[in-house]
Amino acid sequence: MKKIYEGKTKDVYALDNGNVMLKFKDDCTGKDGVFDPGENSVGLTIEGIGKANLETSIHFFEILKDAGIKTHYVSADIENATMEVLPAKVFGKGLEVICRLVATGSFIRRYGDYIEDGTPLVGGYVETTLKDDAKGDPLITSEGLAALGIMSEEQFASMKEQTLKITQIVADDLKKKGLDLYDIKFEFGYNNDEVILIDEIASGNMRVYKDGAIVDPVDLTNMILGK
Amino acid sequence: MKKIYEGKTKDVYALDNGNVMLKFKDDCTGKDGVFDPGENSVGLTIEGIGKANLETSIHFFEILKDAGIKTHYVSADIENATMEVLPAKVFGKGLEVICRLVATGSFIRRYGDYIEDGTPLVGGYVETTLKDDAKGDPLITSEGLAALGIMSEEQFASMKEQTLKITQIVADDLKKKGLDLYDIKFEFGYNNDEVILIDEIASGNMRVYKDGAIVDPVDLTNMILGK
Repeated sequence: MKKIYEGKTKDVYALDNGNVMLKFKDDCTGKDGVFDPGENSVGLTIEGIGKANLETSIHFFEILKDAGIKTHYVSADIENATMEVLPAKVFGKGLEVICRLVATGSFIRRYGDYIEDGTPLVGGYVETTLKDDAKGDPLITSEGLAALGIMSEEQFASMKEQTLKITQIVADDLKKKGLDLYDIKFEFGYNNDEVILIDEIASGNMRVYKDGAIVDPVDLTNMILGK
Repeated sequence: MKKIYEGKTKDVYALDNGNVMLKFKDDCTGKDGVFDPGENSVGLTIEGIGKANLETSIHFFEILKDAGIKTHYVSADIENATMEVLPAKVFGKGLEVICRLVATGSFIRRYGDYIEDGTPLVGGYVETTLKDDAKGDPLITSEGLAALGIMSEEQFASMKEQTLKITQIVADDLKKKGLDLYDIKFEFGYNNDEVILIDEIASGNMRVYKDGAIVDPVDLTNMILGK
């Protein structure tokens, strides 16, 4: 197997069947030894977190598969912390797609003049940012993505529709465990001109509350996996 | 006449016929005595600039009227520096709608990883910001405007379509004078559920180049008015 990319939390290998293998590592993003999913550099290693993130991702990818939503997920090998996925290209230099069900965080920092922290965003609100650490991951509109040649308006519409559906499915699953999804971050790519969900769906990608208090990502993983 | 609002550069009066009168003042936004249309506080007074901005606005509003585009403009009295307009409500606490024909300024500060300063944005790119000095006039998407109840997606579509048309008309007029429009800022409001262009169309609202060099707003006014 040829390693084609070495990421912060995953390495990527090319498979002979044309698919790609993701190897989940125990490295986490964070700063000064403190785990922070929002950080952009590797800050620490937590034994077993790679497998835990993989198991969480499998949990959600399987639910999405059952709901008839195509993603890059093919299969997984928990023992070896690997996931086989469809090959996909990212849009531009990578986008983050955020779906917010409750207004908080940067949404309030930007739009707090119009809405109180903690207000539900009925039906969900989807926004896209460019992955660009130096520029602080700037917000970009569908018009901007089209103007820069990153994504067509049709691709954006498909991504937005999928994001709303997937978020609802994840929120419903968390709800059964007494957990409230506030917002979640996804990555999309295209495979044979089709826009599909890629990367992972792990605790570090979402902001979840229980009885009004935010749940730490490590605890969240245990709650999702019933451990 | 009853004064209903005292603005930084214009005062607003209610007329008996239900319309509104804008009185253009000689106060300009700027800082430390230097004219800067992007500033949010009154920094200086330039004798005659109120009338000059009014004349510039009439120039463009009349061209738009001839092109069949409805705006808030009804008539004007240059001698008294007043313009009669349709009453209109702003969206939320006020929006700025920017149309960019050439990528520069804050567009490059946000998206400079994808595009060179000075690159044409073919067909024009429209973006909206909230008027919120404290938060640095944050960018907002059509989805955000809908989520905050500021504007429906249909209203946004109408505003975007009008913005592209109006910008092209302004750019074509400037082109006849050897001037290149890079970007322009508008304000929209709603009058009887119709989205229409409001406020002014003056030199301080646009970034214009001549032979590759930016044109100062005062010089630009003279060029537009042929003075």
